[in-house]
Amino acid sequence: MSSAEQKTPQSLSSPEEYGKLLDRYDTWLFDCDGVLWSGDDLIEGSQDVINHLRKSGKRVVYVTNNASKSRKAIKKKFDQLGYEAKEEDIVSSSFAAAIYLRDVLKFPKDRKVYVIGMHGIEDELDEAGIQHCGGTNPEDNQLLPPMDFSSLRTEEAMDPSVGAVMCGFDMHMNYTKLCKAYKHITRKGAEGPVVEGEKGGGCHFILTNDDSTFPAGGGPWPGAGSLSAPLLFASGRKPVIVGKPNQPMLDTIKEHYHIDEKRTIFVGDRLNTDIAFANNGNIDSLLVLTGISTVEDIKKEEIYPTYIMDSLGQLNEAK
Amino acid sequence: MSSAEQKTPQSLSSPEEYGKLLDRYDTWLFDCDGVLWSGDDLIEGSQDVINHLRKSGKRVVYVTNNASKSRKAIKKKFDQLGYEAKEEDIVSSSFAAAIYLRDVLKFPKDRKVYVIGMHGIEDELDEAGIQHCGGTNPEDNQLLPPMDFSSLRTEEAMDPSVGAVMCGFDMHMNYTKLCKAYKHITRKGAEGPVVEGEKGGGCHFILTNDDSTFPAGGGPWPGAGSLSAPLLFASGRKPVIVGKPNQPMLDTIKEHYHIDEKRTIFVGDRLNTDIAFANNGNIDSLLVLTGISTVEDIKKEEIYPTYIMDSLGQLNEAK
Repeated sequence: MSSAEQKTPQSLSSPEEYGKLLDRYDTWLFDCDGVLWSGDDLIEGSQDVINHLRKSGKRVVYVTNNASKSRKAIKKKFDQLGYEAKEEDIVSSSFAAAIYLRDVLKFPKDRKVYVIGMHGIEDELDEAGIQHCGGTNPEDNQLLPPMDFSSLRTEEAMDPSVGAVMCGFDMHMNYTKLCKAYKHITRKGAEGPVVEGEKGGGCHFILTNDDSTFPAGGGPWPGAGSLSAPLLFASGRKPVIVGKPNQPMLDTIKEHYHIDEKRTIFVGDRLNTDIAFANNGNIDSLLVLTGISTVEDIKKEEIYPTYIMDSLGQLNEAK
Repeated sequence: MSSAEQKTPQSLSSPEEYGKLLDRYDTWLFDCDGVLWSGDDLIEGSQDVINHLRKSGKRVVYVTNNASKSRKAIKKKFDQLGYEAKEEDIVSSSFAAAIYLRDVLKFPKDRKVYVIGMHGIEDELDEAGIQHCGGTNPEDNQLLPPMDFSSLRTEEAMDPSVGAVMCGFDMHMNYTKLCKAYKHITRKGAEGPVVEGEKGGGCHFILTNDDSTFPAGGGPWPGAGSLSAPLLFASGRKPVIVGKPNQPMLDTIKEHYHIDEKRTIFVGDRLNTDIAFANNGNIDSLLVLTGISTVEDIKKEEIYPTYIMDSLGQLNEAK
């Protein structure tokens, strides 16, 4: 029976059960907010669990839909909160999107990505050796004169070497970027292949993630999924969505870390992203109740984790 | 049998048929682009038809989803192209939205509308005596520092006297406006009533129109419906949509002009906006083939006009 079909999550509450869980899995994939911390506050005991896993020779990977920061920048948050984390232990949706484009879609080196997003996406594209435009370029972050589309109609604006539009969270989202991205994904042949040495024609359409909102001081605020909604509505195109709960992110993790799926577990606080993500990929999952989802939500949403536990910190009592 | 159920549109092609049509209706509602003009080019003969209708004592009303301009500004286009049109002959979705808010929703005078939109919406709200904020205010048209939400968390930003969010086409659409609008339509009690003399609580959510794209030099470009998509996706709220093919716009016309529905006809070039609009409101319709829709589209879209004609100009041959 696969995890996706399993209907009765096992509730873990004894030191012996905790011990068995630790033994059973070699690779531990963690969602961060709601599991390790809550905003800027640590969730009690979670650091010790992570340290214990690392000392026991387990592989620990942090999996976040946050695409606004590069892995370098996300690592800083781990450092500040006192977690041990290397850059290569972090999989953000911006990193996964860049890797997906390079390794799965074999994106040609002479084509560019038009970015709706911030430094997080640009840095990961740079790391992956993929050319890009748009994003934080000042020319793409200006408010146009009312009803004046002239600057959007130049050959430069409609650069035919663009072979993908990548859309993530962008606090500088504006109509200029929206129009340029729209024109790329709807131009003649846009749904076709993206070919090396050719211009025009195919243009991939990729979202780092489609979270409708995200938490931040005073939030929730509209998230990456909301910011890409105009492009979906205007173009009618279906994008590839990389982040949780979608498959491209898990495929990237499987490919990149060469994990044994049967000895891998995903730990998260949200049923409809984290647990659905694990279920979709047929790996086991642990729901912790220190974040968004409650025990009651399980039946309501019909998304079933393999295990449930009040808080990650309880694993410190393992025997 | 109502127009909506009618399956066989009458194709008009003889001077006698044209003459009968002219006799049968007193009020002529016109879509503009694709019927009277195409972009900046006049559609041949349409001016003479309009002049003839006016001289015969018919009421002529122009009905447009364009919310970016006020009726004053739209009248200028009529003047430039040589059409006779008074401001009160024009119903734009911005005008209809303001009237809907004032007359149908009885919007209190001491509450404000938060605007995502341009001068067209602001001018019509002014005309209707409704207070507003956001819109073209420079403070709402700045790109925020990355990941800094502090300016969105002030009492001023979250003005509790806001009792409606009105969203239309806005070339200065940006994340600041999106966040403010989102907070208003999701605050505690936002789905409840909007009460005079009270702050906070209810907040209406109104779209002037939901056109996914619109034509303009080099277009199509993302339209008002695309720009409001983030708010729908992030909030999960269903807005009232005023413009064609929705009912509030026709209710406004019926109320404002006191028309005899049985002697009123709508002339348009698009089945899924113009003709659907007429059918939804049980008034007769004439599809002209000088714009978007073709005869073949009728069966495909299953939207049936009362009459079909190649071009409005043919009515000049009426006997």
